[in-house]
Amino acid sequence: MTPFNIPPIDQNAQALARRRWDNLTKPLGSLGVLEDLGIRVAGMTGSPTPTIRRKVIFTVAADHGVALEGVSAYPQEVTAQMVANFLKGGAAINVLARHAGAEVMVVDAGVAGPSAAMDGLIVSKIRPGTGNFAREPAMDRSEAEQVIESGIRTFQKIHRKEPVDLVGLGDMGIGNTTASAALTALLTGSPVAEVTGRGTGVTDQILLNKIRVIELALSRHRPNPEDPIDCLTKVGGLEIGFLAGIALAAAQARVPVVLDGFITSAAGLLACRLAPALPGYLIASHRSVEPGHGILLRAMRLQPLLDLQMRLGEGTGAALSFFLIEASLKLLSEMATFSEAGVSEKGQ
Amino acid sequence: MTPFNIPPIDQNAQALARRRWDNLTKPLGSLGVLEDLGIRVAGMTGSPTPTIRRKVIFTVAADHGVALEGVSAYPQEVTAQMVANFLKGGAAINVLARHAGAEVMVVDAGVAGPSAAMDGLIVSKIRPGTGNFAREPAMDRSEAEQVIESGIRTFQKIHRKEPVDLVGLGDMGIGNTTASAALTALLTGSPVAEVTGRGTGVTDQILLNKIRVIELALSRHRPNPEDPIDCLTKVGGLEIGFLAGIALAAAQARVPVVLDGFITSAAGLLACRLAPALPGYLIASHRSVEPGHGILLRAMRLQPLLDLQMRLGEGTGAALSFFLIEASLKLLSEMATFSEAGVSEKGQ
Repeated sequence: MTPFNIPPIDQNAQALARRRWDNLTKPLGSLGVLEDLGIRVAGMTGSPTPTIRRKVIFTVAADHGVALEGVSAYPQEVTAQMVANFLKGGAAINVLARHAGAEVMVVDAGVAGPSAAMDGLIVSKIRPGTGNFAREPAMDRSEAEQVIESGIRTFQKIHRKEPVDLVGLGDMGIGNTTASAALTALLTGSPVAEVTGRGTGVTDQILLNKIRVIELALSRHRPNPEDPIDCLTKVGGLEIGFLAGIALAAAQARVPVVLDGFITSAAGLLACRLAPALPGYLIASHRSVEPGHGILLRAMRLQPLLDLQMRLGEGTGAALSFFLIEASLKLLSEMATFSEAGVSEKGQ
Repeated sequence: MTPFNIPPIDQNAQALARRRWDNLTKPLGSLGVLEDLGIRVAGMTGSPTPTIRRKVIFTVAADHGVALEGVSAYPQEVTAQMVANFLKGGAAINVLARHAGAEVMVVDAGVAGPSAAMDGLIVSKIRPGTGNFAREPAMDRSEAEQVIESGIRTFQKIHRKEPVDLVGLGDMGIGNTTASAALTALLTGSPVAEVTGRGTGVTDQILLNKIRVIELALSRHRPNPEDPIDCLTKVGGLEIGFLAGIALAAAQARVPVVLDGFITSAAGLLACRLAPALPGYLIASHRSVEPGHGILLRAMRLQPLLDLQMRLGEGTGAALSFFLIEASLKLLSEMATFSEAGVSEKGQ
């Protein structure tokens, strides 16, 4: 695989942003998390007053062979149906991206069956869904490498055509919380039962089955937790690999990457294991209801901006957080300083 | 004072909104807090799919005689200086309101000295700042009634001219966390030390003095906690009374009212004591760092949408939450249903 040269965070831009916050007409530190966020983005982009023009959310879809084990409340065909819904603009991510002024790029990274013959779909189908990892590895090692490379190349191509200033990651795939829980258990060393949740809303019985399926798969395939490609190969997902690639390519180009919920954060942690400098470029948009999500965020030392008890995916949390990220940067750039506004500074 | 006829929440609109959420192309309940929010706004407005056109944030400024007791880190003249900053568009609230597509209405409800001779200022100065409640009541009872009435009439006039769909409350006033802490202690029966915080960022010593000043004022003036007007009279603030009036008038017109932080929530609880149906029309935008804020929100049974460790006021938290409120309503109105999109519903 291509080596990942992720540039170091720009400490100088961070120091300048920090100094600017302290000169703006507000009590010191009173914008809380928004101040930290502005400083972080300054470090990512290398500008003390970053500006955001083009915002893109990648909603990456793929199917999961493990869905055959009855781990989801929805039938597998919903993945393809939702891809069509994304392309028609009727899904939650379409509404929220419009509201946030962001583009949605819909990717078929391995949906079962033929790709939707619809305008706007990015087709990068290495295989039509993963193998059922209850029985066989999810994919071959070469496929795992290939799907990450596809994510990288897709981002690079889009960014070369017209620079992207903010990237959001989104996912769709019936069964993908099962793959994400398996990866989370592996990459963080957590018990499967602690990182496995109800996904789209399964019953107690299905949840127990889901945990059992993951435990069996891990003991059958014995993925090497020190080898992220091996983890992706054996229990991963095609959208997860593709999203990891997007994150790596965006960070390489100094573009902030906004995680959504559980699936995109599993992709994020996988990518961090491939490039240890990556967390500096990641922003956690929200805390999902999925129990494994908090564990992934802690592993990346990220604090989510929102906690709205959401568990939808698609990039919906990322889209909501775009507004907050832009708010932070606009405050940093547009607020008057004490001297510009003729406001007295703190007395004591 | 005028009686407050706040209409009951529309249960039918709420039921229709709830049913619509369940038919949209997403797992049941997966939009979490945004679903509850949409249902609440449906009940307030009486429409199952409410739309927001005109958004207004009222940033209401006034001075506090108690600032003479050294309870703030900033000198009193900052109130008037910040009013000028609001009118020039350089403050945090201006940046965030522009970002959220909202208007900022700046009100001088009792700033010390002459009002700024600047376009756009709404002057409603019953008196130039409150009395120092360490020594004398903050205002007369008739002034307290008058300032609430001014808030009511100001909202009604603006709403009559061009209907407002979403109201945010904001505040500015050196010393106003001291008045708000006094009101919070009174209206919730909490110990002064538990509801008093560092405001704009005072030292330990000033914080102890602030607590002492409030305790002395409460024992000197003995405001009747069952009589909200008496509380406002003795230890309140002019912006607090005005903001209470705006909240009452907006709810009367079925317009959702978004609280900001500690000061606007003290105004909110004061207004709730005047009109017990008011909480149904209130939305808590964020949880402020001020320790009394959570106590006020619990008294109104409100859950904040955001927790960004902010403590700025001006309406900044309200402006940030406007994006989430609109996101909820756009999702409710614009998402495709399962049948429209041809997506299979939940199997189990």
